[in-house]
Amino acid sequence: MAADEFQARRQTVASGLAERKLDALLVAFSPNLRYLTGFTGSNGNLLLTPDRAILFTDPRYQIQSGQETTSQVKIAKGPLVIDIITAIKRLRLRRIGYEPPRMACDLLQSLEARLPMKAAMTPVTGWIEQLRAIKSAAELERIRRSVETNSCAFEQTVPKVRAGMKEQDLAAELEYSMRRLGAEKPSFETIVAGGPRSALPHAQPTAAPLTDGGLVVVDMGTFQEGYASDMTRMLFVGAPGAKVKRTYRAVLEAQLAAIDAVRAGVSTAHVDRQARRVLKGYGLDQAFVHSTGHGLGLEIHEPPRLGKRDKGRLAAGMAVTIEPGVYLEGFGGIRIEDTVEVTESGCRILTPTSKDLRII
Amino acid sequence: MAADEFQARRQTVASGLAERKLDALLVAFSPNLRYLTGFTGSNGNLLLTPDRAILFTDPRYQIQSGQETTSQVKIAKGPLVIDIITAIKRLRLRRIGYEPPRMACDLLQSLEARLPMKAAMTPVTGWIEQLRAIKSAAELERIRRSVETNSCAFEQTVPKVRAGMKEQDLAAELEYSMRRLGAEKPSFETIVAGGPRSALPHAQPTAAPLTDGGLVVVDMGTFQEGYASDMTRMLFVGAPGAKVKRTYRAVLEAQLAAIDAVRAGVSTAHVDRQARRVLKGYGLDQAFVHSTGHGLGLEIHEPPRLGKRDKGRLAAGMAVTIEPGVYLEGFGGIRIEDTVEVTESGCRILTPTSKDLRII
Repeated sequence: MAADEFQARRQTVASGLAERKLDALLVAFSPNLRYLTGFTGSNGNLLLTPDRAILFTDPRYQIQSGQETTSQVKIAKGPLVIDIITAIKRLRLRRIGYEPPRMACDLLQSLEARLPMKAAMTPVTGWIEQLRAIKSAAELERIRRSVETNSCAFEQTVPKVRAGMKEQDLAAELEYSMRRLGAEKPSFETIVAGGPRSALPHAQPTAAPLTDGGLVVVDMGTFQEGYASDMTRMLFVGAPGAKVKRTYRAVLEAQLAAIDAVRAGVSTAHVDRQARRVLKGYGLDQAFVHSTGHGLGLEIHEPPRLGKRDKGRLAAGMAVTIEPGVYLEGFGGIRIEDTVEVTESGCRILTPTSKDLRII
Repeated sequence: MAADEFQARRQTVASGLAERKLDALLVAFSPNLRYLTGFTGSNGNLLLTPDRAILFTDPRYQIQSGQETTSQVKIAKGPLVIDIITAIKRLRLRRIGYEPPRMACDLLQSLEARLPMKAAMTPVTGWIEQLRAIKSAAELERIRRSVETNSCAFEQTVPKVRAGMKEQDLAAELEYSMRRLGAEKPSFETIVAGGPRSALPHAQPTAAPLTDGGLVVVDMGTFQEGYASDMTRMLFVGAPGAKVKRTYRAVLEAQLAAIDAVRAGVSTAHVDRQARRVLKGYGLDQAFVHSTGHGLGLEIHEPPRLGKRDKGRLAAGMAVTIEPGVYLEGFGGIRIEDTVEVTESGCRILTPTSKDLRII
């Protein structure tokens, strides 16, 4: 990301402080910090005022912070809170915004205990996430590269899959491919779950072998240049029976119906409803136990969420997953997931991978 | 872990509530949740009273939670907080403990807004972490296996290292080896940093090639059966000069001095001081910018911390890292790290890997 993109983002926040009646925003959450500064360290807080941006971190990040951000950096000798309070006093800040879902209780309590008399911490929820939900061209380019790496790792690995292979070993091959293709790491714990274990939406790979006559769910993603990808595809070891074929068709139809509904201005709940409607036609709606999708970017799960209770609307430049699934205890689970970019007229499906059930 | 080990831990907490004047403890932090229940899902809260344990989670984890824990499970249809409040009311709980560093502000605020009149959330910090710091025999066995896998992955990979290899590719090979040896995942982002970049204590691997005449820091760890390992070793591409050799010797002496000081009853700051004392003799104490070590277990960093300002004492059954390092901008960094188990008479070094500088 060009340094001036970070600066422009800080400027957007700085110029939105007044209308929120804030003198400053204190950012503690790592992805928001990275979005506003480029800093990737594990310990940092950003204090943003209308005309300043100060990143507080510790001596481990002295060199790295200087390389990663154009923001002013303050290396704290002790707990960051001490230096933050000093800055709040020096700059005479009164109303300091913070992000309640993104800050631990002890930091807030520690700040509040040390604030000068007339200063107060004021909750501001979802502001940075709202900005992050609409991706810039440079961000979409990174997401696209992350998606391509992920799909390429999948295609490189599928020919190596055999009955008897351990779930763990398939996950290892997928992650190795990602890495060799330039990914920093998986964007979540790679899911490889065979047979009845595929009915666990968030199954971790085990030492169990992939057995003949079984479904295998592969849900994988990469972080590349900081940006996430996410894809689910299904394998079948052997010859699928009628129930597998019918259930697979149901999920695929549900996924295509949801993708069809994606367009700037549409409500996220509407997209979710399209998937549920199709599954209901197959008597499978009760087996779809999660939402249809989620935004992704610097985090693997970020706004918007595409669930039945979600209130938001899609906007051009969002990157979201579309991933209906059905989970039947004893039988197994089937999920199909793409990453798509929302456009004014519909969407661009970023995931290039075939959606056929792969027969092993 | 045997199911009754989780139950025994819950019993320990349940019987400690009264002396803390608590009717219940609400646990939101995933490693603490896993420690007390075995549940590994990403969304869960545990309400512990003297005679009950209720795990709240969402429908994605319906099947998994039933398999992982013997605790009572409540699958919430909406936000978990609604069901937690219902339970608090039904059980007439008044003083409910929570963990301020381990709970996000919004959950606490959301609970407090809904609590019945006479009920209150009461901060309890570090209790579960204190229990977790002393490992059971079964936990030490898992840490030992994790350490062995990690060292084995290192030994399998070192012979493949060549000048010109990308940092990222070496990281990919290390992580692939870990996985094939049975690890679930790296316990943190594998650090492979060559040349002057080795001076960044938390460098991420890049596409830069390992170049002749350069230091390479390899800091790696695995999670296996949920438990962490952590090791740092140094490679050198080519023939090391006098400054590299002298600095390496200084760090190794510092590390051995710190290990020598480890024993049940000794203060953590004392161990840290031994490393600093040696480095001071070499005029390198200012270049040692972090603490000497940390506990590890269900988290890669957990209490105790072995830093100069830390107040704790070591106890038998703790598993800690010993990892002094020096970081010289422009020259590079050198760190040597083992995982050790604290015993009554000293320590058991779990890491079996040679501490020689590996010449490539």
